[in-house]
Amino acid sequence: MTAFTPETPAPATTSASAPLHDEFTLEQYPTHSPAWVDDEEHGIRVPVTRIELEDSNGRANDPVDVYRTVGPGSIPEEGLPALRFPWIENRLDTETYDARGHRIADDGRAAVRRGAPSQQWKGRKPVPRRAKSGRTVTQMHYARQGIITPEMRFVALREQCDVELVRAELAAGRAIIPNNINHPESEPMIIGKAFLVKINANIGNSAVTSSIAEEVQKLRWAAKWGADTLMDLSTGNDIHTTREWIIRNSPIPIGTVPIYQALEKVDGDANALTWEVYRDTVIEQCEQGVDYMTVHAGVLLRYVPLTADRVTGMVSRGGSIMAGWCLAHHEENFLYTHFDELCEIFARYDVAFSLGDGLRPGSIADANDAAQFAELDTLAELTERAWAHDVQVMVEGPGHIPLHLVRENVERQQELCHGAPFYTLGPLVTDIAPGYDHITSAIGATEIARYGTAMLCYVTPKEHLGLPDRDDVKTGVITYKIAAHAADIAKGHPGATVRDDALSKARFEFRWRDQFALGLDPETAEAFHDETLPAEPAKTAHFCSMCGPKFCSMRISQDIRDTYGSAEAQEALAGMQQKSREFLASGGEVYLPDPTVGLKAD
Amino acid sequence: MTAFTPETPAPATTSASAPLHDEFTLEQYPTHSPAWVDDEEHGIRVPVTRIELEDSNGRANDPVDVYRTVGPGSIPEEGLPALRFPWIENRLDTETYDARGHRIADDGRAAVRRGAPSQQWKGRKPVPRRAKSGRTVTQMHYARQGIITPEMRFVALREQCDVELVRAELAAGRAIIPNNINHPESEPMIIGKAFLVKINANIGNSAVTSSIAEEVQKLRWAAKWGADTLMDLSTGNDIHTTREWIIRNSPIPIGTVPIYQALEKVDGDANALTWEVYRDTVIEQCEQGVDYMTVHAGVLLRYVPLTADRVTGMVSRGGSIMAGWCLAHHEENFLYTHFDELCEIFARYDVAFSLGDGLRPGSIADANDAAQFAELDTLAELTERAWAHDVQVMVEGPGHIPLHLVRENVERQQELCHGAPFYTLGPLVTDIAPGYDHITSAIGATEIARYGTAMLCYVTPKEHLGLPDRDDVKTGVITYKIAAHAADIAKGHPGATVRDDALSKARFEFRWRDQFALGLDPETAEAFHDETLPAEPAKTAHFCSMCGPKFCSMRISQDIRDTYGSAEAQEALAGMQQKSREFLASGGEVYLPDPTVGLKAD
Repeated sequence: MTAFTPETPAPATTSASAPLHDEFTLEQYPTHSPAWVDDEEHGIRVPVTRIELEDSNGRANDPVDVYRTVGPGSIPEEGLPALRFPWIENRLDTETYDARGHRIADDGRAAVRRGAPSQQWKGRKPVPRRAKSGRTVTQMHYARQGIITPEMRFVALREQCDVELVRAELAAGRAIIPNNINHPESEPMIIGKAFLVKINANIGNSAVTSSIAEEVQKLRWAAKWGADTLMDLSTGNDIHTTREWIIRNSPIPIGTVPIYQALEKVDGDANALTWEVYRDTVIEQCEQGVDYMTVHAGVLLRYVPLTADRVTGMVSRGGSIMAGWCLAHHEENFLYTHFDELCEIFARYDVAFSLGDGLRPGSIADANDAAQFAELDTLAELTERAWAHDVQVMVEGPGHIPLHLVRENVERQQELCHGAPFYTLGPLVTDIAPGYDHITSAIGATEIARYGTAMLCYVTPKEHLGLPDRDDVKTGVITYKIAAHAADIAKGHPGATVRDDALSKARFEFRWRDQFALGLDPETAEAFHDETLPAEPAKTAHFCSMCGPKFCSMRISQDIRDTYGSAEAQEALAGMQQKSREFLASGGEVYLPDPTVGLKAD
Repeated sequence: MTAFTPETPAPATTSASAPLHDEFTLEQYPTHSPAWVDDEEHGIRVPVTRIELEDSNGRANDPVDVYRTVGPGSIPEEGLPALRFPWIENRLDTETYDARGHRIADDGRAAVRRGAPSQQWKGRKPVPRRAKSGRTVTQMHYARQGIITPEMRFVALREQCDVELVRAELAAGRAIIPNNINHPESEPMIIGKAFLVKINANIGNSAVTSSIAEEVQKLRWAAKWGADTLMDLSTGNDIHTTREWIIRNSPIPIGTVPIYQALEKVDGDANALTWEVYRDTVIEQCEQGVDYMTVHAGVLLRYVPLTADRVTGMVSRGGSIMAGWCLAHHEENFLYTHFDELCEIFARYDVAFSLGDGLRPGSIADANDAAQFAELDTLAELTERAWAHDVQVMVEGPGHIPLHLVRENVERQQELCHGAPFYTLGPLVTDIAPGYDHITSAIGATEIARYGTAMLCYVTPKEHLGLPDRDDVKTGVITYKIAAHAADIAKGHPGATVRDDALSKARFEFRWRDQFALGLDPETAEAFHDETLPAEPAKTAHFCSMCGPKFCSMRISQDIRDTYGSAEAQEALAGMQQKSREFLASGGEVYLPDPTVGLKAD
C-alpha cells in the first residue's frame, strides 16, 4: 500500500478566534471548547468538541470529546481555509484548467441579488481543478488501488477506527467519502454502515422566499448543531452565487439536485429540458465543489404508470420532472441513457452519486409498492455501473413507511445494491401529524438506521407545510442526532454510550451544569431547568423541581449507595448481594397458577 | 351471559354548550364537531370527533370519525354528569356507607388554599359507594362470570370491535377497564394489547410550584389533545382537594401513587411510614374515585443491594421511598406483605393495580439488569395474587432502554405476567438529549407498543429538568399520540390507517384545510403553513411554499394521473402497465457482477 505524506493542514485557531457575522458562537456551552485528536505520524489532526466536567466529590472526571462538524469557523465573505488543498495537490493527478466559468443564466431567471454578493466576496476565487487525462481521482479508486489517503486517515481518526477498515469499506463500495476536489475546505467524513450514522440537513431558497445571507446562516447553524452534510435545494434566484457562498464556507460536504437548477435555466418548462442543459449544469456544479448530487436516473418510462393508482402519486420533485419529461417526449429518461457519461464526469472531480428515489412513496398507503421497488432494482443496476467507473455511490430511500415495513426497505436495498450506503428521508411512520413530522420521521429513521441505513436526511417540523426557518433547522438537526445516536447504540457501535454514561452519572450526582453540557442542546436544557428553579444555587442543589427538596428519589438512592459504600457496610452488602444471587440462581420464582382458570376461587 | 339494561346516559349537549372557564375550546378546529356512535339496542352512545371534509372535484368525501377523549365538557366548579351512575346502581351489588370522609391531614402539611376551593364547589358531593359485603364489583369479576356490562359495550363501540372480545380479554386479565365505581363521570376505556394503544399524561403540583386551577386546566388540556388516562402525581399542598376537582371534572380514568400522599401525612419522613397510614390513604382515594393506583410492592428488601453498582441507582420516587423504608426498618416492604389486604380493598371499588417498577433503570447503562428483572418476577407473582381476587392489574415498565433491548422488555413481561397489560414510561433510547426526551422516548415507546405494550406514559420536553407547563403537556400528548398510532398501524390494527389515508388524499389534492383538520394538531399545522404563505387563497392554491407555483411535484403527479385517467389514455395506460408487469414478472433484473472484484476494469 502506498501512503501519501501530506503537509500538516493549516491550524484553525486563527479563524476560530476571528469575529463572526453570526450572532451565535460556534460553541454550544461555556464548558465546550474546540480541541484536536492527533495522528502525529501522518500530520493529521481532527477537530473534536471537548466538554470539561466537574469533579465527583473530589474525584476528577475525564473530559468527554465528541464528534464535531462545525469546522474551524470563518468570516462569511472570506470562506474557510483550504484544508485538503495540499493533499489533493500532492497526489499529482489533477490539473487546473480553463473552466466553464460563471454565466448569467446560472443564477436563474431573476438574479436580483447577484451583483452585491459578488462584489462583497473577499475570499479565495478558486480555479477549478479536474483529473488529468486518463486519471481517476475518487477515494474509491485510491482505496481499490490499496492507497491510504490523508482523507482516509482523517476519517479513521474521526471515527476512532482502523484506517484499513475505512479503505476496505470504500473499496467495496460499502462507504463513501464525499469530497469533491474543488471543495478543499471540507473536513472529510465517511458515510457507511460500519461507521457512525450520519445526518443531512436540507436548506435552500425557493421562488417564494429567502436570501443568500439566510442560506449561509442556515448552513453554519445546521453544522453547529451537528449536521454531517448539507443539501442546497435552492430553486429560486441566485442559485449559483448562493451555492458559491455556501461551499466556500462549508466544512461539511454539500449535496445538490442539479435538475432543479437545470429547470431554472429552461424557464421552468420541464419539457424543454435536454441532456445538454443538464450536463452543463452538472459540470458547473462539479467545478464549484458540490460533493454529491442526487440523480433521478431510476425513474424509467415504463415505471411511471405504476404510480397512477397511488394515493399520493409521485412526491419527489426531481422524479416528477423526469417522469413528466419521459411522458411528454415518449423517450427514456435522459439521466438513465446518459448515465455512463455522468459517471465519467463524476470520476474527474470525485463527485458521489446520490441515486434519487423519484418513485418513493409519499404516504404510508403507497409504501413498498411495485413502483418503489421497480425503481430500486434500477438503482441497483446503476450502482454497479457507477462502481465500474470507480465512482462513489449512495442510494436514496423513502419517505413514508409504516414501522413494520421499514426494515424490509434497508435489507432489500443492501442486498440488491451490494451494501452501497443507504440514505433515507425519515421515513415517516404515520401521516397524521403535520407540524410534528420531525418526530414521526425520527421514529422511522431510528428503525431504518438500526438495520443499516448509513445517513438520514432530516425532516423539520415544517415538512409538508412550509420552508424551515432557523429554529426548524435546529429542531430537525437535533431530532436526527437523536435518531442517529440511538441507532449507533442499538448497533453496538464501539464507544457509542460514552456520552450517555457520562451524562447519566452527572444526572445522578446532581451535577446540573455537566448534565446540560453533555446534552445535545445545553442552552435549551438549562433554560427549561431555570424556568422552574431559576436561582443560581439550584444548579448545584441536590434536588430538582420535579420532587422538591425533601422528596427526591435520586437523593434517597444516593443515600443507599453511600450506606453500602461505607467501610462497615461493605460486609453486610456482600452478604445481601450473595443472598440476592442465591435467590435468583434458584430460579427466583413462586408458584404461578394458570391465569385463565380457577382464579375466581379465593 | 347476563346483560344489564342501563338507562340511556344523560345527553351531553347541555354541558358541551355551557360556558367554560378555559380560554380554549374543547374542539380542535372549525370543521371538528362532537358526534356519537350509537348502540341503540343497549342504549349506549359513544362520543367521537367528526371531521367534515371538502369535496374532491365535486365528489363528496365521507367525514372521518376519530376517537375522542375530551368528554362532554364541564363547568369546573360543577363537574361532569355522572354518566355511569345508573349502570353502577342497576347492578345492585354496591351500597353507600358512612365513609372515612375528608380530614385535615389529607391535604398535606400546608393546606393553604383548601378553604377557597371547597367553598367554590357547586357540583355533586358524592356519597362514597363500595361493594356490598361478599360482593366483588370489578369488571374482571363480571367478565369471568360471563356478564356483559354497559362499560364493556361502551368500550366495544369505542374500539369498533366485538363486545365478546372485550369480555374475553378482561376475563383473561389481558385487558383492564379502569373505572372506580366512585368515578361515575368517566367514559369507559380499555387498556390491553388487543385494542388501540393508549397514552397517559402525568400532571401534579409539587412543594415548589403549581395551583389547583392549573392542575384542572392541565387535565382538560391533556384530554383535549387526546390523553386516554391521567395520573395526578401531586406531592405538595392541597393534595386531596386538588384531586377532588380533577376527578369530578375528568372524563378519563385517573391514576395516582398513594405513597406520595402517605408520605406527606408523615411530614415527609419515609421512615415514619406505616401500613396503617398507607391503607388509610388508599381508602381515602378509593372513596374519591381514583381509578388505578401505582403500588411499588415489588421492591423487596433483598433486591435493593442489586442497585448499588448502577450508574443511576434508583430513579423511581415510590421505589426509593420503599427501599429506604425497608433498609431503615430491616423489614420486608409492607406493600408486599399486605398485598392481599390491598386486593380486598381494590375489589370493593374496582380500583386497578398499576404495579410500579420501583427498580426501573434510570439510564440506558442500567437497562435490563438483575435488579429490574428480579422485580419483574415479583410483579408477575403479584399479578397472579391480584387476579385471585378478580382485581384488575396492569404492570409498569421502564424507563431508559437502548433500542435493541426494548423488545425483550415487553416480551418478557407478557410471558411472565401472562399477558397482563404492560404500561411503560417511554422508554428513552438515549440519555444525551435533555430537553428533547419526548422524542428520545417516543422512539422507544413506538417500538415497545408495537410488540405489545398496551399503554404508554408520556414524557414531556421538561423530563429530568422541571415540571411541564401547558405547552409541554400538549407536546407530550401529541408526541405520544404519534407513537401509539404508529404502533397501531405497525400491529395491523383494523382501520388504523383510515385517518392517514384521508389526510394523504387531502394532501395530494391540495385540500389544505382538510389536511390541517385531519392532523393531530390542526392549529399548529395551519400556523406553520401561514408563516410562509399567509394569504387566504394559498390555502386552496395548487402549490405550496416548498416549491413555488411553477414547480410542484404534486401538481406534475396529478397531471400524470389526469392524463392516464382520461378516456383516450386508458388504453395506452393498460398497455404500459402490462409492459411494466411483464418486465417485473420476468425478474426485472440486469446482469449484476460481483461488486468486490473486477470493477476497476472499464
